[in-house]
Amino acid sequence: MTPVARPVFFGVGLGPGDPAYLTVRARQVLDEADRLVHFCKRGRRGNARTIVDRILGPQPAREIALVYPVTTEAAPGEEAYDGPIAAFYEESCALLAAEAEAGRRMAILCEGDPFFYGSLMHLWRRLAPRYPFEVVPGVSGMSGAWTLAGAPITWGDDVLTVLPGTLPEEDLVRRLSGTDAAVVMKLGRHLAKVRRALGAAGLLERAIYVERAAMEGQRILPLAAKDDDEAPYFAMVLVPGEGRRL
Amino acid sequence: MTPVARPVFFGVGLGPGDPAYLTVRARQVLDEADRLVHFCKRGRRGNARTIVDRILGPQPAREIALVYPVTTEAAPGEEAYDGPIAAFYEESCALLAAEAEAGRRMAILCEGDPFFYGSLMHLWRRLAPRYPFEVVPGVSGMSGAWTLAGAPITWGDDVLTVLPGTLPEEDLVRRLSGTDAAVVMKLGRHLAKVRRALGAAGLLERAIYVERAAMEGQRILPLAAKDDDEAPYFAMVLVPGEGRRL
Ligand SMILES: C[S@@+](CC[C@H](N)C(=O)[O-])C[C@H]1O[C@@H](n2cnc3c(N)ncnc32)[C@H](O)[C@@H]1O
Ligand SMILES: C[S@@+](CC[C@H](N)C(=O)[O-])C[C@H]1O[C@@H](n2cnc3c(N)ncnc32)[C@H](O)[C@@H]1O
Repeated sequence: MTPVARPVFFGVGLGPGDPAYLTVRARQVLDEADRLVHFCKRGRRGNARTIVDRILGPQPAREIALVYPVTTEAAPGEEAYDGPIAAFYEESCALLAAEAEAGRRMAILCEGDPFFYGSLMHLWRRLAPRYPFEVVPGVSGMSGAWTLAGAPITWGDDVLTVLPGTLPEEDLVRRLSGTDAAVVMKLGRHLAKVRRALGAAGLLERAIYVERAAMEGQRILPLAAKDDDEAPYFAMVLVPGEGRRL
Repeated sequence: MTPVARPVFFGVGLGPGDPAYLTVRARQVLDEADRLVHFCKRGRRGNARTIVDRILGPQPAREIALVYPVTTEAAPGEEAYDGPIAAFYEESCALLAAEAEAGRRMAILCEGDPFFYGSLMHLWRRLAPRYPFEVVPGVSGMSGAWTLAGAPITWGDDVLTVLPGTLPEEDLVRRLSGTDAAVVMKLGRHLAKVRRALGAAGLLERAIYVERAAMEGQRILPLAAKDDDEAPYFAMVLVPGEGRRL
């Protein structure tokens, strides 16, 4: 079931935020790895790293921080963003490969579930062909969000659409229209646009805004009751399905 | 973060199958609950119950099996199915409420993540208004499936559509057409239809068939390489996205 013999790399899903939602396998890997690898922005704590602060504390001898290059003026999909970011993943992999050659076993920390919109994937596709690599699935951020919102997301034959708030408004409207249930990820500065798209798709009244699910500072409220369009990194919108209740 | 003070009921997500993918909170609840409640068919082990066989073994004094009524000739959505099933949930809740009144704390076992197409939801909506009820999110079956298939499901701005194989063929085709990534759940006897729909949507070549992810008897292969249309209860089809690689 975990077919990789003595992995060199682990991509560890940490769940939505509360350390009680780590898996048994994730805890084991965090305890045993020689290095804890995480992504962060210059001068900031990494988002995934903060999830395990309460159980791991500072680990100066074990940490490897991969610091994203500054790309403030550009957006994903533009060359001025994608170029430096791709170079950053290449350099990160060179650094991690050197650690691997030195015999170290590394846990790469991931928010939620690693293979679901995870930055880890960009390292995994370069390293997994060369080194034994185990990915540990995690409770996704959205599972944490709908659980703590008390809002089962899909009933009966409901279709669920998951989409990033980064999409253009017309794409959001098209994809949201006619779905039974939806999750809009990566809100950040896209909330005003997402709100308009939900309105156009007739889903605004059912939308729930969830900020920092299962973390310190959790906030959950109907989107219609939120009177600004500020949203942090850890925020999403849920539209629960209305399928067959038995 | 777990705001319910001394819950009477727990809906416990057990993850995709390997007990290593239970959360720390799930383990704790399984150890402490007075009763372990699970759904099953007459004369069969429950699907969720078998997930924890390896760690719990038989617990004759603690088990409550809720046995589904036989509805072989009818399908969900038909009155001959929905009627008896709704009555079964009512009766189950009466039984569980009696246990609650006797002071027992109960863990209701759920495959994967409870609030994602879970039978638990039909008990939760009746019991949660009356008793403190904590839901413990779990690693979903699909997270287990795409992880063990080595197939990250969404990249960049990919849109993911999750849909049950129980839908009519034309609905499947319509919902699958134009999505970036897809997961088809509840395959069972619907695989032939799902295969035709994936073909019509142009997704057949990318489709991966996953049976019993993270369980004894796991099978993962390209759907195109599977030469029959048999599928057990624990089976799904994944269509990984092809979004931005950085
Ligand atoms: C790059 S994606 C990574 C998703 C992650 N791999 C997962 O499984 O949830 C980051 C987005 O996940 C969402 N997210 C993850 N955890 C969250 C949480 N605890 N509360 C709210 N949103 C969360 C936010 O929408 C955020 O912008
Ligand atoms: C009623 S739904 C419950 C889903 C569950 N709550 C979850 O989070 O995965 C049952 C369906 O989940 C899928 N499933 C769940 N676990 C699975 C696994 N380990 N391997 C393959 N399919 C699985 C199958 O498609 C099955 O028909």
